[in-house]
Amino acid sequence: MDTGLKKELETVSKLITQTIAEDTFPSGISPECLASAVRAYPIHGGKRIRPALLLWSCGALGGFPDSALYAAAAVEIYHSWTLVHDDIIDEDDLRRGLNTSHVELAVHAKKAYRKDRGTCAKFGRDFAILAGDMQQAWSFAMLLRSAEKGVPPELVLKLVSALALTVNRRLISGEAMDVEFPMRKLETIRPEEVMKMIAGKTSCLLQFAAQCGGAIALNSADFSCEPLAALGAYAENLGIAFQLRDDYLGLFGDVRKFGKPLGSDFQEGKPTPLYLEAMHRLSDAGKKRLLELTGLPEYPQEIIDELRAMMRDCGAEDTLLRRTESFTERAADALSLLPQNRYTGLLSALLDYLLARTV
Amino acid sequence: MDTGLKKELETVSKLITQTIAEDTFPSGISPECLASAVRAYPIHGGKRIRPALLLWSCGALGGFPDSALYAAAAVEIYHSWTLVHDDIIDEDDLRRGLNTSHVELAVHAKKAYRKDRGTCAKFGRDFAILAGDMQQAWSFAMLLRSAEKGVPPELVLKLVSALALTVNRRLISGEAMDVEFPMRKLETIRPEEVMKMIAGKTSCLLQFAAQCGGAIALNSADFSCEPLAALGAYAENLGIAFQLRDDYLGLFGDVRKFGKPLGSDFQEGKPTPLYLEAMHRLSDAGKKRLLELTGLPEYPQEIIDELRAMMRDCGAEDTLLRRTESFTERAADALSLLPQNRYTGLLSALLDYLLARTV
Repeated sequence: MDTGLKKELETVSKLITQTIAEDTFPSGISPECLASAVRAYPIHGGKRIRPALLLWSCGALGGFPDSALYAAAAVEIYHSWTLVHDDIIDEDDLRRGLNTSHVELAVHAKKAYRKDRGTCAKFGRDFAILAGDMQQAWSFAMLLRSAEKGVPPELVLKLVSALALTVNRRLISGEAMDVEFPMRKLETIRPEEVMKMIAGKTSCLLQFAAQCGGAIALNSADFSCEPLAALGAYAENLGIAFQLRDDYLGLFGDVRKFGKPLGSDFQEGKPTPLYLEAMHRLSDAGKKRLLELTGLPEYPQEIIDELRAMMRDCGAEDTLLRRTESFTERAADALSLLPQNRYTGLLSALLDYLLARTV
Repeated sequence: MDTGLKKELETVSKLITQTIAEDTFPSGISPECLASAVRAYPIHGGKRIRPALLLWSCGALGGFPDSALYAAAAVEIYHSWTLVHDDIIDEDDLRRGLNTSHVELAVHAKKAYRKDRGTCAKFGRDFAILAGDMQQAWSFAMLLRSAEKGVPPELVLKLVSALALTVNRRLISGEAMDVEFPMRKLETIRPEEVMKMIAGKTSCLLQFAAQCGGAIALNSADFSCEPLAALGAYAENLGIAFQLRDDYLGLFGDVRKFGKPLGSDFQEGKPTPLYLEAMHRLSDAGKKRLLELTGLPEYPQEIIDELRAMMRDCGAEDTLLRRTESFTERAADALSLLPQNRYTGLLSALLDYLLARTV
């Protein structure tokens, strides 16, 4: 990663961690293990791309990033709650190299209540549902604090409304499509449905982050005006590129850095763009073999290697990489419509990083 | 029920059903079965006590109930999402005599995807998590619409903030305590913890409903001013009385009218006020028998009859009824501090009904 970008992302990360850690929302929660679960993902955090996007988009349009601080913390918390519920649904054990929320709560239950494994696992899931429910409210409460930073009440109302109306519906519809696809016959799933799922699940919160930052700078929630539309197009295409890259790394990445098991999409039978492209390109014998390698209980290195060779040889890997680049270019084109300054420079560096990243 | 009250509750119910049914939030959701799940509880509804409280509290302080219409619909939708997640956690099959959300979604999955029972049950739970997540956002979006009815943006912001900060934390903490109690040793659970749980799980949304209606009437979110404090005390005590009555009916009610199986609290080992009171009063032999009757897989009529006799004979039933009456009286005392008009008359009739109800 570009050292300037890395340093700026670290600055955002510290600022967001501090802002979230100082907020009093979790202090009123009982029991204490639930308060810990509500704090965990937002404070531990990931790359903090969403708050960075929001703060830099505010700066890009001439606003003071500090006025967008609570909004930036809000999108990070919003992202967190969707991950907590997502991890329950996907039955994932690891997130960013640590126990997922429901697993951590089950581990706590085992120590605190000494009940059997099944009871503790159910307790973990139940409390993680409630933790995510609280985090959703926390993200709204955090966004509402923007008024303390001088954002006019009318604009705050419009931003909260966009988060509740547009982001929630598109994002959760995306998550729901992701859950529904494996229930359907593979041949009934159209690539455009998968792209709609990705746009909902990943792009729409990034798009909101960029537009929310821009809206605070302009003191206008007219998302169709030229600069806010350009910020939206930048973030939307960046999000799709990011997700395509993530699908790539889910098979071709380094498990020690990636933070979740390789091949988990294949295990869950998810019709990712890579998977659908391979099914389109493979011979009947190849398709048969890919189906045999779908939904296995485990993905040891030799299976990962076979899947990698298969994706490489049929051209699906190359197609995925080219499509990732194409969405990245569209994002760059949108960015070129904005004023060129320090912040659009950071948005541009972020894009380069996302295209080039290996983990 | 008083025929005047019944008619007024029906009027509120029709108005709320229409307002919720006409709102476009669910129309943007895919897949369609998720949109149906998001609509189901809010449109089918229960007694509509929360929106009635909100509208009548607005009227009681001289406001126009119509200005509080979207706020009233919002608290009903808020109540719905907590029920959807509650039903997953409690593994309940029935709600208001119909399939619960996760069961209905599992039934849909069986028909639509023809997968095995376990897969469809998991799909039902996963989609019900997402349906509740969307309903929480829907309730915020609905409350935000209050601005369309002339409620000033500053007040709307404060009401949304109270819903996100106070109600969410207290209500979900209450739900979490309810989930945690059965994990702990029965003798470690203090009656005051149970009362805190009940206040969070039931009272705090009722309290918000009453104060929100009053705040819209007064154009002030100062919940500590005398009329809003009195409305809050009325609704809080009414909520506790309501919940104590509900615990009573969970054993002594009529299953055909109650809408869920009798004895389910005993099945789940919940330390209800009735249960703790009985454990306090029973002889060692009685306690032993009560523990034998806790956590059974089924509760046929002869077990219900035995539990009823046990609660009656040790005096726990009578204590519960007297405590219910005491909270009802506190609610009536708070109500007497408010102006006497048609709306406070309805609030008073609601209280009488809740004390006297048999179902």
